[in-house]
Amino acid sequence: MTATDPHALESALRAAFPALSLAGPSDLSGRAPGEHPANLAAGVMAMPASAPEAAALVAFTRAHRIPVVSQGGRTGLAGGGISRPGELILSSARLNAIEAIHADEMTVTVGAGVTLEALQNRLRPLGLTPRIDLAARGTATIGGMVSTNAGGILAFRNGVMRHQVLGLEAVLPDGSVFSDLTRVIKVSAGPDLKHLLIGGEGAFGFVTRAVLKLEPFRTERASALIGLPSAAHALRLAGALQAETGIELEGAELMWRHFFDDSARNHGFDAGWLPAGTACVLLVEVSGETADAARERLETVLAQHWEGAGITSGLVAQSLRQARSFWQLREEADFIYREHPDAPSFDISVPPGSLDRYVADFRARLFQVDPLHGAYVYGHMADGNLHISITHAGAVGPDRQRAIEAAVYEGVRELGGSFSAEHGIGLEKRHAYLTYSDPVKRVMADSIKQALDPDLLFNPGKVPFTALPAGG
Amino acid sequence: MTATDPHALESALRAAFPALSLAGPSDLSGRAPGEHPANLAAGVMAMPASAPEAAALVAFTRAHRIPVVSQGGRTGLAGGGISRPGELILSSARLNAIEAIHADEMTVTVGAGVTLEALQNRLRPLGLTPRIDLAARGTATIGGMVSTNAGGILAFRNGVMRHQVLGLEAVLPDGSVFSDLTRVIKVSAGPDLKHLLIGGEGAFGFVTRAVLKLEPFRTERASALIGLPSAAHALRLAGALQAETGIELEGAELMWRHFFDDSARNHGFDAGWLPAGTACVLLVEVSGETADAARERLETVLAQHWEGAGITSGLVAQSLRQARSFWQLREEADFIYREHPDAPSFDISVPPGSLDRYVADFRARLFQVDPLHGAYVYGHMADGNLHISITHAGAVGPDRQRAIEAAVYEGVRELGGSFSAEHGIGLEKRHAYLTYSDPVKRVMADSIKQALDPDLLFNPGKVPFTALPAGG
Repeated sequence: MTATDPHALESALRAAFPALSLAGPSDLSGRAPGEHPANLAAGVMAMPASAPEAAALVAFTRAHRIPVVSQGGRTGLAGGGISRPGELILSSARLNAIEAIHADEMTVTVGAGVTLEALQNRLRPLGLTPRIDLAARGTATIGGMVSTNAGGILAFRNGVMRHQVLGLEAVLPDGSVFSDLTRVIKVSAGPDLKHLLIGGEGAFGFVTRAVLKLEPFRTERASALIGLPSAAHALRLAGALQAETGIELEGAELMWRHFFDDSARNHGFDAGWLPAGTACVLLVEVSGETADAARERLETVLAQHWEGAGITSGLVAQSLRQARSFWQLREEADFIYREHPDAPSFDISVPPGSLDRYVADFRARLFQVDPLHGAYVYGHMADGNLHISITHAGAVGPDRQRAIEAAVYEGVRELGGSFSAEHGIGLEKRHAYLTYSDPVKRVMADSIKQALDPDLLFNPGKVPFTALPAGG
Repeated sequence: MTATDPHALESALRAAFPALSLAGPSDLSGRAPGEHPANLAAGVMAMPASAPEAAALVAFTRAHRIPVVSQGGRTGLAGGGISRPGELILSSARLNAIEAIHADEMTVTVGAGVTLEALQNRLRPLGLTPRIDLAARGTATIGGMVSTNAGGILAFRNGVMRHQVLGLEAVLPDGSVFSDLTRVIKVSAGPDLKHLLIGGEGAFGFVTRAVLKLEPFRTERASALIGLPSAAHALRLAGALQAETGIELEGAELMWRHFFDDSARNHGFDAGWLPAGTACVLLVEVSGETADAARERLETVLAQHWEGAGITSGLVAQSLRQARSFWQLREEADFIYREHPDAPSFDISVPPGSLDRYVADFRARLFQVDPLHGAYVYGHMADGNLHISITHAGAVGPDRQRAIEAAVYEGVRELGGSFSAEHGIGLEKRHAYLTYSDPVKRVMADSIKQALDPDLLFNPGKVPFTALPAGG
């Protein structure tokens, strides 16, 4: 049973857990692996339907020293869900119940395998919505969003996933069930260990349930695309929209010109209305009493600030279809990887006031690496979160990859930012973690990992925990 | 040097750290101990002026196996700052610089020893304020508020201290300096270990610096006292005020009748305007464009909801002085302990919608314990946080204390609440921690404590970490 043969593991699990929902190599061979082609490489996936069933599984895998990899929607962008033969995938697919909606207190208790979109759709008829939203809503699960501490488009107003979680249930590496399902914001009752599981990328537990805060869903919305000379201009304009009464800012996404132009081209969107001097395009969405009122107020505010904010051009959506086409430009960025399959991609955050300075310095550093590199830059402006993809001609070897990483990450910490904003570390940012994070924090993380998972069986090799023998 | 003689410890520290700010038994004998008379019992207090100086001290105390107790403003209500001879108090008193105000990004980098009020006063001329406020603002320090994950009166809107901390610096039990001073909301860069220090009550580190989120300070305010038949009525009214445009709800504190009446009597406040059928009194504060506009809007909303909300009587403050007298009724609760010096006191939270049910059930349980017990009940209604003090004739022995605890805590977890909402565990809630918290969470906490502080030198005996030999 310590062999790496998935068929043997499948048989052993079927014998030990006759009622368990299980997929073996033949079931998984045709299944889409998600964001990373190696996500399903373990070949065996268990789909426990409850925390006790997951706990029994973990007791079994622990006894046989079988490593486990947690998976939700497999939309992770850092390879945190990658699995290898000999490992068992623990999927949240059957933990898919929206268990209790407490509409009066605006909380929901939800299984880890529920997708964000399924939760949104269930809540909207009640006039409620989770306080977090992101482009991968259709496949990303609540458990995965907890494990990566997801961010998305509402973080500037509501904070990240960590700030939405009131309660959490998870199976720990020792097979016990951590159960802290409070539904209150005020808890100071000993170390709040759910915050180790949030953003823990499966290293400390397999999340089975969560209690999330909700907010009223404002259906009546208006969107606009606005050309601006800099991020600072965009930030001021977003601030003005936030300060307005009668409308609420629901999103403020910034696309630097190269990204915007190529996204527009790929989506057949006419960008001819943008004049020269437009360094970036701001996508804003606001809500109001009615969609018409929101649109009119947005038009009025834009007109008021047109000159002061340095607006070069603007387009207010006149229909829901047009608004969707705006968001498509920002959210459907697959064209990058179709045109540049191996584009090194990054996810950093800096204080919003430093965005222009960071982008200028980063471009200068990238130019030093190779003047032929291009950079797509876009992201969640109001919280300083940038996504960056580097284009290049020809293959990027390890040395060039490191040089590009340095161009992106240098100075981020000194600016008060983070080299990983919302995607986590997984496998793909291990080098960055070891190079750009606080070494004291890493030693502390290693000690905690060793204390909670001494055999390193939970999502091994991810993050990584380097002080430990098999943690590399 | 393993002796418990404070004079010997003082001499040794003076010899080892000639430049250190240090207070020995003779300096401390006349000093006010703060909330608990035994806070200064160690007799020796070191006041490092920087994280490196604190780290050097911890290396010294660790080498000599001297336990350390962190202290800020010594306003903690759970005995987390109590010290004993043979221990060294690590005070944040000289970590008192407001280091950098980033007004554009609404963040501040601040030393752990700065009081909340000093920070508020420094920020207000800039139109900014921390997103948290509480009655002990004049003495509570940022470091103490981090260590207890303080809550206060704005948590219903902004969350608790944990949600305000963007970055943190601390000295760990091994003498290293944890330095994670990001100023961004989006961080998913490996386990976010500052959340172990937040609410860690000094068990995992000595907090030296923090980066906090800020918000605009709205100076123009209006307050009202409103008599209501139940917490549910109060909750609906607070919800209506939150939904109003043009005003912002800044506080919603609820006082059950026995507390309100005795507080009014003690503060010479006339409560004759409250008719029978008034089960509780809601104190609300709102802000608006101007104080007059806020007051007028508040009066209008109250008039609109008067019958629907079941308001029995109301008083809108006509001056700042009158508003202060309202807040005094809620915040200056010392009269409880003057009249009942040993009143068992509690700090629980339940989902706000369960407040009436909880209070009724609790009162029934308390009546079973002894019909002569009275209960002061008051707190931060909108987040379900109740403070409860039990009055009694004669001494409360250990058995009676346990029976009262059971009356208060029974059912809290099942309702989705917490037996400790914002005061922490310290020494005084150890029994509750061992009785009412998730045993799996406690084992996990014990493992982490052992990994990070194997000699149990940081704030020993608090919380406590029971799986460990000296943790009781």
